This record gives sequence, C-alpha cells and structure tokens, in this order.
Amino acid sequence: MSINAENITHDSVAAGAAVPEATPEEAAALEVLYQDFESENLIPLWTQIADLMPMVPTPKAVPHVWRWDTLLPLAERSGDLVPVGRGGERRAIALANPGLGGKPYVTPTLWAAIQYLGGHETAPEHRHSQNAFRFVVEGEGVWTVVNGDPVRMSRGDFLLTPGWNFHGHHNETDQPMAWLDGLDIPFVHYTDTAFFEFGTERVTDESTPDISRSERLWANPGLRPLSGLQNTISSPIGAYRWEHTDRALTEQLRLEDEGHPATVSQGHAAVRFVNPTTGGDVMSTIRAQFHRLRAGASTDTVREVGSSVYQVFEGRGSIVINGETNVLEKGDLIVVPSWAAWSLHAETEFDLFQFGDHPIIERLNLNRSYTEGRATS
Amino acid sequence: MSINAENITHDSVAAGAAVPEATPEEAAALEVLYQDFESENLIPLWTQIADLMPMVPTPKAVPHVWRWDTLLPLAERSGDLVPVGRGGERRAIALANPGLGGKPYVTPTLWAAIQYLGGHETAPEHRHSQNAFRFVVEGEGVWTVVNGDPVRMSRGDFLLTPGWNFHGHHNETDQPMAWLDGLDIPFVHYTDTAFFEFGTERVTDESTPDISRSERLWANPGLRPLSGLQNTISSPIGAYRWEHTDRALTEQLRLEDEGHPATVSQGHAAVRFVNPTTGGDVMSTIRAQFHRLRAGASTDTVREVGSSVYQVFEGRGSIVINGETNVLEKGDLIVVPSWAAWSLHAETEFDLFQFGDHPIIERLNLNRSYTEGRATS
Amino acid sequence: MSINAENITHDSVAAGAAVPEATPEEAAALEVLYQDFESENLIPLWTQIADLMPMVPTPKAVPHVWRWDTLLPLAERSGDLVPVGRGGERRAIALANPGLGGKPYVTPTLWAAIQYLGGHETAPEHRHSQNAFRFVVEGEGVWTVVNGDPVRMSRGDFLLTPGWNFHGHHNETDQPMAWLDGLDIPFVHYTDTAFFEFGTERVTDESTPDISRSERLWANPGLRPLSGLQNTISSPIGAYRWEHTDRALTEQLRLEDEGHPATVSQGHAAVRFVNPTTGGDVMSTIRAQFHRLRAGASTDTVREVGSSVYQVFEGRGSIVINGETNVLEKGDLIVVPSWAAWSLHAETEFDLFQFGDHPIIERLNLNRSYTEGRATS
Amino acid sequence: MSINAENITHDSVAAGAAVPEATPEEAAALEVLYQDFESENLIPLWTQIADLMPMVPTPKAVPHVWRWDTLLPLAERSGDLVPVGRGGERRAIALANPGLGGKPYVTPTLWAAIQYLGGHETAPEHRHSQNAFRFVVEGEGVWTVVNGDPVRMSRGDFLLTPGWNFHGHHNETDQPMAWLDGLDIPFVHYTDTAFFEFGTERVTDESTPDISRSERLWANPGLRPLSGLQNTISSPIGAYRWEHTDRALTEQLRLEDEGHPATVSQGHAAVRFVNPTTGGDVMSTIRAQFHRLRAGASTDTVREVGSSVYQVFEGRGSIVINGETNVLEKGDLIVVPSWAAWSLHAETEFDLFQFGDHPIIERLNLNRSYTEGRATS
Repeated sequence: MSINAENITHDSVAAGAAVPEATPEEAAALEVLYQDFESENLIPLWTQIADLMPMVPTPKAVPHVWRWDTLLPLAERSGDLVPVGRGGERRAIALANPGLGGKPYVTPTLWAAIQYLGGHETAPEHRHSQNAFRFVVEGEGVWTVVNGDPVRMSRGDFLLTPGWNFHGHHNETDQPMAWLDGLDIPFVHYTDTAFFEFGTERVTDESTPDISRSERLWANPGLRPLSGLQNTISSPIGAYRWEHTDRALTEQLRLEDEGHPATVSQGHAAVRFVNPTTGGDVMSTIRAQFHRLRAGASTDTVREVGSSVYQVFEGRGSIVINGETNVLEKGDLIVVPSWAAWSLHAETEFDLFQFGDHPIIERLNLNRSYTEGRATS
Repeated sequence: MSINAENITHDSVAAGAAVPEATPEEAAALEVLYQDFESENLIPLWTQIADLMPMVPTPKAVPHVWRWDTLLPLAERSGDLVPVGRGGERRAIALANPGLGGKPYVTPTLWAAIQYLGGHETAPEHRHSQNAFRFVVEGEGVWTVVNGDPVRMSRGDFLLTPGWNFHGHHNETDQPMAWLDGLDIPFVHYTDTAFFEFGTERVTDESTPDISRSERLWANPGLRPLSGLQNTISSPIGAYRWEHTDRALTEQLRLEDEGHPATVSQGHAAVRFVNPTTGGDVMSTIRAQFHRLRAGASTDTVREVGSSVYQVFEGRGSIVINGETNVLEKGDLIVVPSWAAWSLHAETEFDLFQFGDHPIIERLNLNRSYTEGRATS
Repeated sequence: MSINAENITHDSVAAGAAVPEATPEEAAALEVLYQDFESENLIPLWTQIADLMPMVPTPKAVPHVWRWDTLLPLAERSGDLVPVGRGGERRAIALANPGLGGKPYVTPTLWAAIQYLGGHETAPEHRHSQNAFRFVVEGEGVWTVVNGDPVRMSRGDFLLTPGWNFHGHHNETDQPMAWLDGLDIPFVHYTDTAFFEFGTERVTDESTPDISRSERLWANPGLRPLSGLQNTISSPIGAYRWEHTDRALTEQLRLEDEGHPATVSQGHAAVRFVNPTTGGDVMSTIRAQFHRLRAGASTDTVREVGSSVYQVFEGRGSIVINGETNVLEKGDLIVVPSWAAWSLHAETEFDLFQFGDHPIIERLNLNRSYTEGRATS
Repeated sequence: MSINAENITHDSVAAGAAVPEATPEEAAALEVLYQDFESENLIPLWTQIADLMPMVPTPKAVPHVWRWDTLLPLAERSGDLVPVGRGGERRAIALANPGLGGKPYVTPTLWAAIQYLGGHETAPEHRHSQNAFRFVVEGEGVWTVVNGDPVRMSRGDFLLTPGWNFHGHHNETDQPMAWLDGLDIPFVHYTDTAFFEFGTERVTDESTPDISRSERLWANPGLRPLSGLQNTISSPIGAYRWEHTDRALTEQLRLEDEGHPATVSQGHAAVRFVNPTTGGDVMSTIRAQFHRLRAGASTDTVREVGSSVYQVFEGRGSIVINGETNVLEKGDLIVVPSWAAWSLHAETEFDLFQFGDHPIIERLNLNRSYTEGRATS
C-alpha cells in the first residue's frame, strides 16, 4: 500500500468534479431528483464518498486518558448513592470516548467500565451474548461465579466471562472493590446479535475457593484433560493469575539478558492471553495482552487497524499518540483508536494491560499495520 | 435459549429498581454525580442497559421494499444529470434503510445500490478495502475490469470485486445498463478499516472477451490450477455465470423430483456462491446465495441473527416478515433485519438473489437461529 | 537442509566406531548380550541405524515402467480365464514394484491396477475403508455405482470411490473395458485400519445416466448446494469429466500464450482434482493431478518426498528419473519413488495423469522438496 | 459399521468362487497367465484380497509385555560392553514386537527403546526428520540439549525432540540413567521420508539449568509470548514436568470427588500432552497421554484403530487385551495393537504413561472405535 496516496483525497480530486457547472435548468432538475431520492429512501454515493470511503481510516473515536485517581472516587460516590441489583444489574461506569457522540463506548466496538462492589454486596446472576472480562488493578475480596464456578478476583488477575455464561459477583469482605470490565457491547449492539437472560438473585455458589474449578482442570501448561478434547469457542480458563503473567514476563526479560530471543522487541516483554484448546484469542471478539517495558525502553511507532485500551498496572511512562505525549501512572486508562500512530515509553519498569478488537479485524481479513521506518504489511 | 424469556425485560424488572425512592438529599447528590460523570466522559450502565443489552436483538433497521419500477427511472434521470468520473467515482444510488437515520446503509453492515452507466461511459479505476460485488437483474454491455481482467456483465451474473483490487467499468454499447452493487461499506466504516486509492482514468484493458481470465483459470468444477495452490482470502473467480447457477438450481429440483436429497427444503433449491480455494464464502464479510422456489412452495418461518437483502430475479411471490406480507416482482429489493421472523412464498416459480452479513456473524461465533416449530440452535 | 551432508554417512563415520577393538572376553560377553536381547524381543539401535535412519530417503521401491501394450493383452487373457464375482470381487491386476519384494504394491503406500470387465459382466457391490479412484485411458460402456449413484466411465474421466462407500461396476455393452484403479491398500494394510463389508451381488441401480447425481449437485463451478454446507472428508463429486479437465489445461496454455500467469512452469499446464467443500485433495490419502506439456517443453529436475505414479493419456515423451530416460507412450505407467530426481520431457503435446501419496506426507508435515539449481524448501 | 459382518469373510465366501472348476486346459492356461504376470511384475487381486483387505484390521503386531526388571539389567550390561558415540549414536535397545518379523518396531509405526547413559557419558548431537520423545520412569542427572537448549531429565518428565532439531544428551553424574525413547522411526522409514544430519561430538551447551529456556518461554498456562505468534508444527515446550502432570491428575480426581465433570470416566483421570500453539498433539505423528486410575477402578473395554504403548509409572494393575490379563508393575511396558479389545484395571492407584500413532490415523480420517455395550463411531 502506498501510504503517500494520502496526499490525493476525494476532496482534492472531486472539487467541482462530480457535478460540474450546471445550467439553471439542470440545477433545478437535480434538486428535484435529490428530493425524489429522499422520498424513496435513496442516497447517492457521489455526495457521500469522501466520508464513507476515506483514503485511510478516519476514526471518530479520539485518543483520551481517564485517570484512576478520578475514576475511583466517582465509583465510591456511586457506591453510596446507587444500589446494585436486578434491573440495573451492575454498578459499572463506562468510559465514553469523547469522539463517539455521548455513547458509552470507549471505541466503536468496545466497552470499558470501572465496576464497583461494596462490602458484602452481590451483583445478581445473568447471562448475555456479549463477551466480558475483568482485570483487577488493585484490591481483592470479590468472587465472580461463572456458570456455577466461583472465581477469586485479586490484583493482576485477568478473568473471563465469555458470552452466554451465567455470572454474578459477591463481595465477601467489609471493603469495597473496584475493577476494570471489558466487553464487546458496542459491537454486539451494532451487529444486532444481543441476547440476555436473567439468572438468580444471589450467586449460585457462595463458596470462596482460592482457585476455581476451571483453573484446576485447564490451567496446567501443555496438559489437556481427556474429558475436554472438543475445542471451545472461548477459553475454558476462568482466571489467568498474576503469578503466572508476572513470571512469564520476568522470564522473557531474563532470556533477553541471557542473549536469547524471547521479547517482542528490545526491552519489551509481552504475552497474549489465549484459549488453550486452540492457542488463539480468549474470546472471538476481544484480544487481551500484557506488556512489560524495562525502565528506559521504547517501542517503535506503529499504526494498526483496530482499536485498543491500555491500563497501567504498575510503574510510570507514556504513550505518544499521533505525536502527542500522554504520561500515565498506575490505574490510568488510555484509548488508542484505529490507525493512530503510537509508541510506548517507560520511565520506570512499566506494566500495562491491553485489550482490543483485533480478533474482529483479523477474522474478517481487514488487518493492516505500518511501522515507521519499515515496509507495510 | 429460552425464547420465552422475552416476557421478562429490563424494563419490567427495572421499573424503579435501580435507584429506589431517594431522599431529596440523595436525589441532589445523584444529580451532581451524574454531572460529574458527564464532565469526566463517563456514563453509567444502569441507565443504559435496557437499550444496550436487550433480551433479543432489537434492530433499528426495518424491513423495507424498493421497487425496481421506481429505482430504474430515478437511475435514468441521474444518468441525464450527473456525470460519472473521478471524484464521485460511481453513479450509484444507495438504498437507505428508513430505520437507520438517513444513512446510506441498507442494514447496519451492508450497502446496496443501483449503479447506472450510460452508453459508452467509463467509471474510472480505483481500489478500496471494502469488498464489493455486482448482481445483474437485467441488461448487458458493460465490462468490469478487475485488476486488469475484463469481466463481461450479463443478466443473472454475480461478479466479484474483493477488497483492494483495482477496478473500473466501461459500457461498450449505445444503451445504458443498471445493476445491483453490494458492499460492506457500513461495516468497514464502523470498524475504521477503510483504505482507498485512485487508479487510472480509463480501464486498463478495454478488450471485451466473453469470459474473463479468472473464469478460464478457476471456474472449472473440482479442478484447481497448480499455479494457484495458495488459498486466497476472497474467491479468485471474477464472475459466477447465470448459465451455471440456473443449471445447478434446475438439477436440484429435478433430483428432488426423482426422490433424492438435493434441495434445502421441499420445493426450495438454493446455492451459495463460494471461494473454490476453501469452499467458504466468496468474501470475508459478505455471503451471497441464490434461491429458486417452485410455484406454490413456501419456506419455514425462521429468525436468524444477521441481516439480508433479497432481489427478485424472476417470477412473483412474497416474503412475510414479522407477520406482514410483502409482494415482490422482478427487480424488487427487500431487506430483512437481524432476528426478524421471515418466510418466502412463491406464486410462480420464484428466483431470488440474496446477500447478507452472515460471514461476519459466524466468524465471530455470534450466530443463532430459530425455526418456528423446531428447537433453537 | 544441507544436501551435501550426504557425503558423510553412518557407514563412513561408524566404520569400527560403535564397538571398537574388543578383547576376546568382551567379544564373548557381547555375543551373549545379543543372544539375550533376541530372547527378550529386543534389538539394539547401534547395529540398525544406518538402514533405519539414512541420511536421505533410500526407498526400496524402484522406478519401473509398465507398458499398456503388455498390460491390456494380459488383462484380456484374464477375462477369458477368470470369472468376476463374489469372493475375488474384482478382476484387477496390480502393478508390483520390483523393489518391494513381490508385494502387489506400486509404492509402499499405493496400489495401482488394471481392472478389466467383460461385456455384460458385473463386479458385485462392497465397501471398504480403503480410498479408491478409477482413471480411464480408453474405452467406455461401464457404469460404476457408488452408494447407489450410477456414474458413467469414459475416456479421460477421473472417478472417485472414497472409503466406506458401497460400489460395484457393470458393463452395459458387448465390449470389454479396462481402466486404471488406484487405492491406498498398502497404507491401510500397513496402518492396520482396514474394514470391509460385502454388498449386493448386482449393482443397486442399473440405470445408465450420462451424468451422475453427484455431478448434478456438486460439479457446478463455485456453487455449493445449501443442502451440503457440512464439509466432507472426501470429495462429493463422483466423476471429474475429461471435457472439464481438457478445457482447464487448454485455457492455461492459452493464457500463457497471452502473457498471463496460469501455468505451473513454462509450457506446463496442470490441475489438481479437489474436494469442492474444502479446496483440498479429493481424498485424505491420495492426490490426483493432470499435466499437459507443450511439444518440446521440459520441467525442472525435482526431488520430493512422497511417491507418484504417472499414466500417459496422450502423446509421447519421457521421464528422466535419477538420470535414466524412460520413453513413454499412451497408456504406459511409470512409478517415481520418494526423493528420486525426476523431470518430464514432451516430444509431442504430452498429457499425463498422476496420482501420489502426498496428502499423507503433507498432513504429517514430512514434506520436503528440492529443485535442482534452487534453494530447498 | 456392522461389526457382525465379521462372520462373513472373504474366505467363507470365496471358497472356490473366484476360479471355479476349471478344465485341465483352463488350468494350464491359468498357470501360464500367472507366470506371465510374474515376469511382468503383476499380481492379481483375487488371490490376495483376503489378506490385503480383511473384514476388520488383522495386525501382525501382537500384544506383548516387556518387564522393567529384565530391561534394566540388559541395558546395564550394554553400558559395560558398548561405548556410546558417533556412528552408533545412542545406546538404545528397541522393543521388537514378536509379530513383526524381527524388526526393531514395537508397532508397525512406532519405535520404543530403553536408552542408557553411563555416568559422565555424552551421546553426540545429531538431527533427523523422525520425531522423538523421552519419558523418565526413574532416575535423573542427564540433560538433553535440544537445539542448544539444555533440558533436565527427571522422574515423571515427558521430553520432546521434534523432527529436525539437533539434540544430544550428557550425564552430569557418576550414576547411569535409563529412560524410555519413543519415535516414529518405522513410519518415517516406511514412507521414505527420513533425513539425518550429524552435529557436534559434544553437546553445544553443557550448562545444567533446572528449567529449560523453552519452558520459561512457553510453559505458562494460557499465556503465549508475543514473540511466538506463528503456530509451530510441534510443541515448543521441551519438557512437560511431572509436577504439573501429577497436579492435573490429582485435581481431576478431586473434582470428581466434589461431584464435577473432570475425569474421562469414573475413577479415571487422564491428560493429553499438547502443543500450546494449537491445542493439538505435541508432534504430527505421535500422541502422548498420562492416565491415573483410582485403586479398584476399571475402564470400559474398547477397540480402536491405531496402536499404543503403555508404561507403568507407579502402582500395580492390569490390562486385559483380547480377553487375556496382563499384570503390570512399575516400569513394565505393554503394546496394544490396532483394533485389539482392551481395558485397564487398577489394583492400587495406577499411573500409566501412554503413547500411540493416533495423530497419523486421525489426520488421514482412518479413525474408528468401538466400546463394548455402546454404539460404534
């Protein structure tokens, strides 16, 4: 693809081209034609093409930062004022991308929210076709019960609730807990594929095991139970524990130190959370990854089709997006729209959780990326 | 899935549930909280869930019929008033679903348009990431040139222009020609994956062969060239000819007459246009099929996730959508939104071309369907 | 891979290495050890490795030519002396590779035979897990009935009987007919996967249609019946007709003449027979292809893992195998063992049918090839 | 499949059928014909079909037990008499199935051997297209170096050397060590796909880390390095540690105790070793699994296509094969040929390692199984 084609646009070419100097009679006839189009539910391409078919993606979504220091107090105030229960279902507060016209969408396809559950509260069970995950930047004490399997939620854990699994949450402590929810609500809404069903008012299993049944059966490296030889659409692992993620990242950087290939680029360790039955993404519509940069490390500047959200887990650094630097600290969230040029820079060791809509893009063969100073792909 | 869960909705359950009787102080505090949410680009789930996460899909798109007898004269008037050329690119008039707020989208994901090319006109070459096809309900005389391969367009033919292939059209006759264009413009726009590049002003090969090079190489049943062993994302066949489609449908009905399994249901022959390198859909985002019903035949009433457009190719019949009967004749187009209950009924032998977004739905595992009187799947 | 490693072999390295100068006591102890091995059903690697694990494949199968002029008279004599019927099942005479110790195997994995059916004879129905095909180098008048579907056999046709389909043949004429049978009998025997079942004494449908039901339903280019959306292990097409194969090869050469990519190499047109539900090989264990070389054309010299059989369909030319030239004429059969260096040379226009075991090799990731003068892959 | 078809065989049907009462002249002519066949390298089907195409698999391989108590002393005697080094390459003693005519094959497709390495010995590096694994029933102190990555070998570990990876072993202790080697030597030999290359005389990395680099990068449950997004033919994990296998089996039985689905059948926990990039078998030709039966538990009696070898890791029990009971203790090995009827019975808690050729069978769609008292599949 010749990126420089951006220079030539519909507008530059089309200026006066589509409908050249018309006589007054022609102009009048054209106006009547456009009225007739409208009354027949028709719209001509030639007046729309510049917006509809741009030279490169022109997302309405914009880069934006939400600060954890702002989010958490607002969630706490919600905890005081808004009960959690049947109907509203969850005390979740969505990040609304300022470019998306007041919709509770962080990108056109993705939902991101801070969810807050007070001490001894329960969020009732339900299920829906939307895929969901939780990521815990701090705190503990809540169990999410997924299809009857109680899953402990603790700092650094990545937890799955794939589509059409019943789930509810309950807080076993006196302390509130807040975490990040990610879902494909906008995409499922857009494609008119949403189904929803209410479940029980309380969770179906109130026990609080340290490790879920899904992990006991599935989170053994390279070992597949013979009772589970059928591949599953979503990962059967309910919780990806921080202990394992941290160890994997630590080992990648150690291997790099020892001179072996292991990191994705110099000083940049990264893992993808995957479905062990296929080696692919955990859910059909959402990719989740974890990054660790050494203090001082930077990534290349990249453009890629698809949108992402990052949350800082630990450390301090920045993302430069389209030339603008955004300094980020623990808990801060930032959205990177499609085809924005971005790079990561670590001041201290810098740990970031990332999720994005790339499985949608890739499964439909719409993926494309561009690294500054390299050939496109 | 228990369809009857439709009875219970967020609204019925949530009536007053999310935020019960508040004191004046609480109500005031809540109002401040909501203002703070807004200034921080946050939106609570509990006020949005009924719309965002409905019990079953609630498409904004509505069923709607466009009559060929109306479309064609409007296209002809465009031919008199609007030139075709660089900038506007194509004289295409899009079907705008009345439910989609004045956007030129026939469904949330799909574009359908009538394109019109006067005698001896040329639509200049360009390429884009959007996938496109043409279907010819009547007429002939235009060649579409796809990546330098001239493809004749004639009645009944289904023609492909997969994403990022250069293409232009030229009319070799004195007569105008009109056809149906189908693209994934809304989906590509929505996912921010659009790229576009201008090509030459005239088509790169003005020859007018009866059969394209792509057909000569690829349209041989069960025979794959050894020069083409790598699978391709989209079908390498540029034209699916009416002669073959008609024969396939005719044979299915004859086999049914002879007592052998061949039709999709009694009196209903149907084929899917496929990529011969994989046996799957012709393009990643668009499914295309052709149906023939015997005079008097009907299909079951079905709901399915995903949206479709039908165009009558020949004959007379009707589609009943959500209980409402739409009589259809040659050239008429109708859109069936996601999860609408629909059935086909043939008065005469009834031939219909269909396209839809089902590959999107299926590749992301969001597919679900329901046949009246049978179990769901 | 470094082909030159062939210079160093087990033998050259091992000469005296494995068991160096032993004292008489050690030699005696070793002899006792070897006896004890034998009585315990044990065999040491170090005495076997040169044969078991050679530097490059060292097939026992050898290149060999069978002349049609020899085969056909022998088949005719069998027709006079040996009845066809239940028990012997088929009047088939297998090509026995001279290197394979008197087994009726043309290669270690494949069976090739000339089958002969006299006027008005019937070969009774049976089914087996072995995959089978027929290729007709001359003649007509027989129908093979596959799972109840009568399939006409004519010159140039490639016909399928995938594993576990009932099938029988009957000759409707006064004239005998002979054809090539290809099966995976040796492989199925070797892997202990053979099942067999007798069917009816006569074919279950004695009608003689010009075209089978399988072709009517499936041999439409790029068109898949909606009643057949489930992929099948083997191709659902019962007959690949010469008319289509000839046309595909003709068009490839014409496209080459016109300056377009189409042939596999200069002057060499070729198609693979494929399963339209997947685009892959017609059966899990057997690849079938058809080649046409222009008069005077040659192919590169290639080594590839996997074994093949070629039958000349028309014309005159040669295959050079491991430096030895084999002149071939219509009907002649030649076997190319694994890793032999071979090339084709056409004196006249030269049409060859080929089948091989490459799907076995590729599905198990054992494939490797080497073209003289190019890098290996 | 109708298993009862076994009653009718080629022999019973064919008795006298193929060539009925012949006149003396016919008999003489037939004899001449058969001589002519032989001189032309031809063999008729009708004299071979009963052996070639049996009603059900009739393996030449037989069930057989090798006792660890016998194997180990023989390996020790080899250690005294036979040096290990270039040429012989490995001090490996193969289990030769008594039915396979004196070949060092445990089944037609598989090789199983006890390998023995004395204190401070080194087995030099080489690579070959054959896939290999090691399983350690007792002992420790050896490191196998696979493509430069040192992998510790300890009791219970399952270790991989996929095709074409350089590998050598060295013993860092004063004590000898013995283990089970499994390879696809017979299959690679049979298909003429063997390549071999010598490497260095000593291992390329003599360090003795507790955990290999492959494990540090890949043995993290559900976590895939971003530097390893390309799927690999074989598993990138060099060692599957006993600690993980034991825990997975323990948890399956605990989950069963708690009333949850987890085991493959009552009292029978089992895991398959898999490639984390695909969720499929560790190598293209070899399946490896581990079984644990509770004391007193039994499995159903099953026939399945494909051959297996079991080695007892711990405990005491038996396998009944074709009605004959084989009592097994720690280290004992037993081979189960294709389509044999077998069941496991645990006297104490009973741990077994298993490997087989099922990926070959399944990838070629030749799989079939039959459980007594259930329907076939």
